[in-house]
Amino acid sequence: MSEQHKNRISVEIYGQTYKMVGPETTGHMRLVATMVDDKMREINSMNPSLDSSKLAVLTAVNAIHDYVKLKEQVEQLEAEIKQLKG
Amino acid sequence: MSEQHKNRISVEIYGQTYKMVGPETTGHMRLVATMVDDKMREINSMNPSLDSSKLAVLTAVNAIHDYVKLKEQVEQLEAEIKQLKG
Repeated sequence: MSEQHKNRISVEIYGQTYKMVGPETTGHMRLVATMVDDKMREINSMNPSLDSSKLAVLTAVNAIHDYVKLKEQVEQLEAEIKQLKG
Repeated sequence: MSEQHKNRISVEIYGQTYKMVGPETTGHMRLVATMVDDKMREINSMNPSLDSSKLAVLTAVNAIHDYVKLKEQVEQLEAEIKQLKG
């Protein structure tokens, strides 16, 4: 329903093609796809017996872990700014 | 090789059991597993025809997208702190 412009690209992640659609730049979407592909290959090299579904789930676990840690950092930085402005 | 204490738990994500091992608290690991499970169910509800491997890859894409956006926010906050500290 939105009038916002949407970009569309095809990306390859771990040998499969995915269509990405969204308001983000294609550069951002390509960066995200490359980061997922890199992480999947890294986790696969450490656990070569994993099937691709479990490998992808562990990649998501890894990404969410990084996200939660970064979220904690954002909260610390926001607290620091509040104190500096205080 | 590290002497650091490691915690171990089993978590269930999208009907599969995974063993998680790491220096993080079990609470952190459970939170991450729950977030991945929630995200997979949310993406599945919007794309019910996806197989579980593609679903997990899109969950990882979604998580990395959030991570990259948050990383940009961290950089902005760090720049703000630098300016406030003069």
